Amino acid sequence: MNYIKQPMEIEKRSFEIITEELGGRTFPEREGKIIKRVIHTTADFQYADITLIHPEAISEALESLGKGCKIYTDTKMAMAGMNKRALAKHQCEVYTLVDDPQVALEAKERGITRSMVGMEKAMADENTKIFVIGNAPTALFMLCQYMDEGKVNPSLVVGVPVGFVGASESKEELITKSVPYITTRGRKGGSTVAAAIINALLYMME
Amino acid sequence: MNYIKQPMEIEKRSFEIITEELGGRTFPEREGKIIKRVIHTTADFQYADITLIHPEAISEALESLGKGCKIYTDTKMAMAGMNKRALAKHQCEVYTLVDDPQVALEAKERGITRSMVGMEKAMADENTKIFVIGNAPTALFMLCQYMDEGKVNPSLVVGVPVGFVGASESKEELITKSVPYITTRGRKGGSTVAAAIINALLYMME
Repeated sequence: MNYIKQPMEIEKRSFEIITEELGGRTFPEREGKIIKRVIHTTADFQYADITLIHPEAISEALESLGKGCKIYTDTKMAMAGMNKRALAKHQCEVYTLVDDPQVALEAKERGITRSMVGMEKAMADENTKIFVIGNAPTALFMLCQYMDEGKVNPSLVVGVPVGFVGASESKEELITKSVPYITTRGRKGGSTVAAAIINALLYMME
Repeated sequence: MNYIKQPMEIEKRSFEIITEELGGRTFPEREGKIIKRVIHTTADFQYADITLIHPEAISEALESLGKGCKIYTDTKMAMAGMNKRALAKHQCEVYTLVDDPQVALEAKERGITRSMVGMEKAMADENTKIFVIGNAPTALFMLCQYMDEGKVNPSLVVGVPVGFVGASESKEELITKSVPYITTRGRKGGSTVAAAIINALLYMME
């Protein structure tokens, strides 16, 4: 069987196809890099329409990443998908608490999601500047509430929960805030989208 | 803000919405569980049309999982997304070699993808009965070639690479084989889809 076996060649050709199929649609350079990487990850061109990037989001994110910050995410999958070599190069670090046994216990006692309890703890950490929600609308709702109350002030919120119950509503709530955000309106999103957005930002720094 | 905070309630309501929106479309019970979990993970109803399940795939997979087998996957994200508690309950185990330093070195020397080298090593392990390809068409092409040569005989191939270069072609190659497979035709798929398929199978055993 004859097929391309070089990873760099595969990625290059993929982005060429995406650009071709986007036709006449153009985006500002940095925004375009994020949107194309999300399409590369999902093979879903709808992300060209639903991805919304706050005007300050990319510059604020790059500033925090450049100084070496902590990134909190509500999913192990998003964490697994972020480029660890690129993170380490800038003394950045990603973590999640969703699997923490103490968090699981507390969530059970309070009858709320582990994502919410994990988010509470992450918001209490002042080195955590970027919050990446790829799964749980409950975590994004809670983050919005704490921002309203002035308890947390992120450099970037990547709010891309996926699903049928609360995902869309939580993202509509996010875009009413004055925080720098990147989101995907409607039901779509998820861990692969979340990781692709962070990786696109990291690759802009190379 | 008023929103559902109980995880079981959120999942139950999500599957109700998916069933409603699928309208009159029905699937055989076990196939339907897989397809609905993929839609739950992606919020993308196109998976109802592109998901293809070999008639023997579910029974063969459940038999191997029931005996406690090893699952190889080409992505850390798919591995992170599989339910470890459910795997452990059946003495099953998931692993990937894509991050193995020896694999990286060998891939560089040979000018091929790490996914291909990892796949070669996994195929040489006789306890690995299920192969889950969520990322690399190159890994799926190689698996097809080794099946043709009679070198490997999986219980299940979950072949759902995503993307623009080779993904669709590798899946069309897979469905010409007599192996039990689950695939998503065309460009779409990925790590979240791969993990959702394995989790749907694991939940059938509970």
